[in-house]
Amino acid sequence: MNEHACPLCEADGGLLVFRNHDLRIIQADEAGFPAFYRVVWNRHVAEFSDLSATERQICMHAVVKVEQVLRSELQPAKINLAALGNMVPHLHWHVIARFDWDSHFPAPVWSVPQRPVDEAQVAAVASQCLEINRLIAEKMAL
Amino acid sequence: MNEHACPLCEADGGLLVFRNHDLRIIQADEAGFPAFYRVVWNRHVAEFSDLSATERQICMHAVVKVEQVLRSELQPAKINLAALGNMVPHLHWHVIARFDWDSHFPAPVWSVPQRPVDEAQVAAVASQCLEINRLIAEKMAL
Repeated sequence: MNEHACPLCEADGGLLVFRNHDLRIIQADEAGFPAFYRVVWNRHVAEFSDLSATERQICMHAVVKVEQVLRSELQPAKINLAALGNMVPHLHWHVIARFDWDSHFPAPVWSVPQRPVDEAQVAAVASQCLEINRLIAEKMAL
Repeated sequence: MNEHACPLCEADGGLLVFRNHDLRIIQADEAGFPAFYRVVWNRHVAEFSDLSATERQICMHAVVKVEQVLRSELQPAKINLAALGNMVPHLHWHVIARFDWDSHFPAPVWSVPQRPVDEAQVAAVASQCLEINRLIAEKMAL
């Protein structure tokens, strides 16, 4: 896949939370996981090791900022980080707040569900995401 | 989970490829995925953001070294990186070479299989892992 057929070259890929020259942070729209963010490298590269050492630091700095805000605001059971890209080979990092009540915990979000979605708990997390998005943007702008 | 009940505090967690003061690199034993490595932080921390900025650089430097060797030796369709730790919350990075013929591609390895394991292809990759392990150790020792 080159940049001419790449959905992450054509669109932000979700609700835009922050953008700079190098990368953007979006809130994904994944059912049952409101606190599911992605750090998308703006340039079309497939692999993390396609970045220079400096670029990798910039990228992981953003991943860590998102992780820190999710931890401080949501106290999740675990943060999940992943750069897979098998379907869309344009570098993007998933940053996902996981909870012991979520539909898949402790399995990965890509695995089979462990239980039904708890709509009330999901809504409670979702209601915090506006403030989370504001905090991510604020910390990235520092 | 504290370090007294943690399998990654009690054992290497796989075939030891490299170890230094901070971390170790192991080849995992995951059926169908011979080129499945883990970078395990030696100290018991749960989250990537529990590391200092310097430690995060050291950690990702190792992740990238493994990725680079897998890419140069195997030309995989994609590298998958992930730090999940829902079951074992001791920081470890999965570094997985993925192939379009593998049992789960393009789905994540934690998802449902897409096809049967191709034993011949798996064996061919496995046969390269001795050299891969040697190269990883060599590059980490530089």
